[in-house]
Amino acid sequence: MADVGIVMGSDSDWPVMKAAAEALAEFGVAFEADVVSAHRMPEEMISYGAEAAGRGLKVIIAGAGGAAHLPGMLASVTPLPVIGVPVPLKYLDGMDSLLSIVQMPAGVPVATVAIGGARNAGLLAVRILAAADEELRVRMEAFQVTLKEQAHAKGARLRAEAADLGA
Amino acid sequence: MADVGIVMGSDSDWPVMKAAAEALAEFGVAFEADVVSAHRMPEEMISYGAEAAGRGLKVIIAGAGGAAHLPGMLASVTPLPVIGVPVPLKYLDGMDSLLSIVQMPAGVPVATVAIGGARNAGLLAVRILAAADEELRVRMEAFQVTLKEQAHAKGARLRAEAADLGA
Amino acid sequence: MADVGIVMGSDSDWPVMKAAAEALAEFGVAFEADVVSAHRMPEEMISYGAEAAGRGLKVIIAGAGGAAHLPGMLASVTPLPVIGVPVPLKYLDGMDSLLSIVQMPAGVPVATVAIGGARNAGLLAVRILAAADEELRVRMEAFQVTLKEQAHAKGARLRAEAADLGA
Amino acid sequence: MADVGIVMGSDSDWPVMKAAAEALAEFGVAFEADVVSAHRMPEEMISYGAEAAGRGLKVIIAGAGGAAHLPGMLASVTPLPVIGVPVPLKYLDGMDSLLSIVQMPAGVPVATVAIGGARNAGLLAVRILAAADEELRVRMEAFQVTLKEQAHAKGARLRAEAADLGA
Amino acid sequence: MADVGIVMGSDSDWPVMKAAAEALAEFGVAFEADVVSAHRMPEEMISYGAEAAGRGLKVIIAGAGGAAHLPGMLASVTPLPVIGVPVPLKYLDGMDSLLSIVQMPAGVPVATVAIGGARNAGLLAVRILAAADEELRVRMEAFQVTLKEQAHAKGARLRAEAADLGA
Amino acid sequence: MADVGIVMGSDSDWPVMKAAAEALAEFGVAFEADVVSAHRMPEEMISYGAEAAGRGLKVIIAGAGGAAHLPGMLASVTPLPVIGVPVPLKYLDGMDSLLSIVQMPAGVPVATVAIGGARNAGLLAVRILAAADEELRVRMEAFQVTLKEQAHAKGARLRAEAADLGA
Amino acid sequence: MADVGIVMGSDSDWPVMKAAAEALAEFGVAFEADVVSAHRMPEEMISYGAEAAGRGLKVIIAGAGGAAHLPGMLASVTPLPVIGVPVPLKYLDGMDSLLSIVQMPAGVPVATVAIGGARNAGLLAVRILAAADEELRVRMEAFQVTLKEQAHAKGARLRAEAADLGA
Amino acid sequence: MADVGIVMGSDSDWPVMKAAAEALAEFGVAFEADVVSAHRMPEEMISYGAEAAGRGLKVIIAGAGGAAHLPGMLASVTPLPVIGVPVPLKYLDGMDSLLSIVQMPAGVPVATVAIGGARNAGLLAVRILAAADEELRVRMEAFQVTLKEQAHAKGARLRAEAADLGA
Repeated sequence: MADVGIVMGSDSDWPVMKAAAEALAEFGVAFEADVVSAHRMPEEMISYGAEAAGRGLKVIIAGAGGAAHLPGMLASVTPLPVIGVPVPLKYLDGMDSLLSIVQMPAGVPVATVAIGGARNAGLLAVRILAAADEELRVRMEAFQVTLKEQAHAKGARLRAEAADLGA
Repeated sequence: MADVGIVMGSDSDWPVMKAAAEALAEFGVAFEADVVSAHRMPEEMISYGAEAAGRGLKVIIAGAGGAAHLPGMLASVTPLPVIGVPVPLKYLDGMDSLLSIVQMPAGVPVATVAIGGARNAGLLAVRILAAADEELRVRMEAFQVTLKEQAHAKGARLRAEAADLGA
Repeated sequence: MADVGIVMGSDSDWPVMKAAAEALAEFGVAFEADVVSAHRMPEEMISYGAEAAGRGLKVIIAGAGGAAHLPGMLASVTPLPVIGVPVPLKYLDGMDSLLSIVQMPAGVPVATVAIGGARNAGLLAVRILAAADEELRVRMEAFQVTLKEQAHAKGARLRAEAADLGA
Repeated sequence: MADVGIVMGSDSDWPVMKAAAEALAEFGVAFEADVVSAHRMPEEMISYGAEAAGRGLKVIIAGAGGAAHLPGMLASVTPLPVIGVPVPLKYLDGMDSLLSIVQMPAGVPVATVAIGGARNAGLLAVRILAAADEELRVRMEAFQVTLKEQAHAKGARLRAEAADLGA
Repeated sequence: MADVGIVMGSDSDWPVMKAAAEALAEFGVAFEADVVSAHRMPEEMISYGAEAAGRGLKVIIAGAGGAAHLPGMLASVTPLPVIGVPVPLKYLDGMDSLLSIVQMPAGVPVATVAIGGARNAGLLAVRILAAADEELRVRMEAFQVTLKEQAHAKGARLRAEAADLGA
Repeated sequence: MADVGIVMGSDSDWPVMKAAAEALAEFGVAFEADVVSAHRMPEEMISYGAEAAGRGLKVIIAGAGGAAHLPGMLASVTPLPVIGVPVPLKYLDGMDSLLSIVQMPAGVPVATVAIGGARNAGLLAVRILAAADEELRVRMEAFQVTLKEQAHAKGARLRAEAADLGA
Repeated sequence: MADVGIVMGSDSDWPVMKAAAEALAEFGVAFEADVVSAHRMPEEMISYGAEAAGRGLKVIIAGAGGAAHLPGMLASVTPLPVIGVPVPLKYLDGMDSLLSIVQMPAGVPVATVAIGGARNAGLLAVRILAAADEELRVRMEAFQVTLKEQAHAKGARLRAEAADLGA
Repeated sequence: MADVGIVMGSDSDWPVMKAAAEALAEFGVAFEADVVSAHRMPEEMISYGAEAAGRGLKVIIAGAGGAAHLPGMLASVTPLPVIGVPVPLKYLDGMDSLLSIVQMPAGVPVATVAIGGARNAGLLAVRILAAADEELRVRMEAFQVTLKEQAHAKGARLRAEAADLGA
């Protein structure tokens, strides 16, 4: 059974959104992914949100672009935490998507990540699940150590490269 | 029976939105006004949109601020033309409201007016109704003549005032 | 006889604007298309607007970019509803076009759609005509069902693709 | 013992941030609040984040304005979910605060809420805790019903007021 | 006979625009001022522009706010140089006015000054007239000397004030 | 002897700026073009501006990008009208260039044209010279007729193309 | 003899800029303050910059608003480090000032601080001087300890206040 | 021993940041370069800043993109002047990076240069070091003469090219 539902308004968002799925897969978190369009299938979208908690989902990740209504609408019909991913479209570099998702009115929060930041949406879902899952938290801490080691390795390569410039 | 439905997410939008009602009243167009919140009563919002045409409404005017989802969500469940009014909130001067309303995906249009432009929303509804109502169109043309006359009168006063500066 | 007039400042706007024509054609709505430049042929532009209703047009769709004056100027000389399409130019991603079209003063509304959103301009024109045309409204409702079915089909494909990631 | 830590760069952020505390108090969630400045006490800030999980905190809410580094820095030293509140300063309406918080690099997510949206930060923390706390989730659902009822009540008052305009 | 025509869309622009008149008066340049609204009296606006050169005007100064079409429309019907003043409205700080005026398409220039910069519009008109009027140019040079002297005087006062701080 | 001086901060601005030269050439207006950098040769830049009127120049066109100081600095040392062209650089689409040029303080105007709008800078210079040159004004009026005819021709082609879509 | 020169385009910038003077005074750094306007006294401005190093100044702090050219112009005529303070004007919240100062072309850097951030300009000047002044650096480190202690004190007060909310 | 430390959050910033290294190398200033990530190795980042002065560094140059926290965090733990380079990422053209770096709170300054302006960061470091190094200042003055000569050479080429257009 899935712990996290990843939804988006169109399959054209998938190239951005699959990074959320990959992050969850790395942590062994069960997820589902689907097209749930606020504007093209509003009733089903409402149903998806209203039934999410009952189906056992614990977190919803919703990606949308432009007048991005999906994350906020889902948040209005579920008590679950909803993570919003602003998907950048052809114009405006995702600024419209970001504002449409993050500027929610008091009462209905959406946990917004960076423009195109689907990987972080997945990692945030892991952190949320880990708040009640000691083992998962340990894995997140291990992941953070890996980030550090990768940065160290990059530093070593950079120092070598910079030496050619006289550093 | 109302021809135009004016809805908004909260009664705090009314000071902005009543200008739409006043414009409709000036043209003798029957309207209704209500709080229909996309985020606080999503199912009722969907119902409002889905039933609007059947109830005889011909145009919907929807005002919302911030992550303004109401106009777009209503447009997704009704075949009627939906006019969106970006209501400015405390920060960002309504730019978030504007982008959240106007940047709708292909398939689901919202007829967006200026930030805080509720009077124009009312006048646009009149124009839409007048497209099939000869008499109403004549009244719109008369209104446009009035606008011109008021501008002329302002010009007369301004010329007088400018004369004091040497004009 | 055309119900909808599609006009733009230059034929360079046609690659964006023809999506409005295609939408109208899908719904069997008669339209005309022309270059009517506010800045290069202002008198003819005024005439186009002033004569539109008399010629039987019911809606005008006007696309323009940068300091986009065409939609607003036409709205000032016709009682018809005018739909404005912000055409993005080389710089600023259409933000200048959007603000030049949507921020109209009280008295003269322009029904603005998304940056580059010509298809929605066509669909909005259909909705406006459908407000007084039962048959057209039924076709719009059928179109909305099609949108939903397409979204469902995309969902099926996405679920299959996501399964490869472990969903 | 506190489940949620509310921190901010200065006590001048408290008028904005206390709405997060109030939301938590409404749900009976134990919290602590403190000044933890990324720029004025960086080592203590790092310690706060690094020790948070060990002290039993499950969620951190961090508010900051301008070059707002606190939420992101805390997220880099804790595996807990960190909620960022962009506090608007004297200029730029909080747009700098928003971008400084939400645009985190891949690997280190911050769950960002609206500019000045501290109440939603509190409610998001409740949703996160409720993901593993059935009773809390029931209370969140009840809260959402209350939001709906309040909106209904506002609608009744608005309909009465609109009647004076002819609705 | 006036050399410069100062026009604006409404008398509500006069508090901003009169600074242009005052600058012209300081230089003894004859001017006229009037309300000429692109949106409320489009035909008269076209006439104003088309007849300006024939009436002996040499420069037009046009102020407008929001979807500011007046300067550009006048420029399209006159061969005279047109100076545009972006008048700031209630929202967006005049950014919409600026972009609507300055972003003119190739072929039809508008000489744009700062948001609310009507005084500079007057001074720019003086410079334009002075390009063919030796005496006026001498007066502009004298004016520039005055600016310098005023700056020097301000410097003296500032140095005194700063001395209190230890400078 | 040149009537118009076209200057820019670097020869990398020439691909944008030569459109100003071409417009002047079309009208038979004598011009000179040079690199005059505010930041790399400030004293020479000051000299260029201070001597411009004495050398017989009547208008200066200055293009610059980013923190674009050239137009404003020249305007501070010459009584001639200075036209500023915001040259777009690699980032920000010329918004920085535009604001750096147009937002001049009261006392020192710069006649700003569109981002990358060098052709309009040339045409504006022609209009300014034509304010005192009857023959040049006639040529500008003829040019405006040509613009109209070109727009008409484009309209004919567009109507033909649109006919294929059913117009 | 002054180590730091604080200059600004007008004495109206002094209420913002004096915070730089106060910071320098706190550290016992000798400074001078003056009005040096790029636009109203360009030759003197050039002289100020060109002579600054010779007069013994080690750092220049320059504040300006709108099309803010002073910091960049000074940087072009002095080898000294120039710190730019974007002064916010009536519109645009200082965004124009910021971009006009920070977006300098390669070759001529300006060390830009926050909008209205004159105190930080003073502190940055201290850090620059301290790079070659061991004693000054010790004082800067002591100052940073004070910042930390103040933040701690604020935390104590905040914890007390939050306790009233149930923390 | 290095006088300047060049650090960045990831080696992906190196293509932008190496221009700082090259500038330093041109002036014979000793530098080091390394990956120091605020988000992936926060403790080491703190240590880097805290130990920088003790190790003999005199200036730190820090580049970062998006929610760019590195320059500000380093500034909070060192008394040295810190130069921040906003690195542009895939979206928003570096505007997020710029605001995250420049909008520092009072007490902790970052000397910010242009978006992508790493070369200027290097040159600013040279100016800072030159404030206490007569010889280095002479070299900076010579460099400024070179800039001027290059601009002159570009002018010669441009005048030749413009002659083809009739200049």
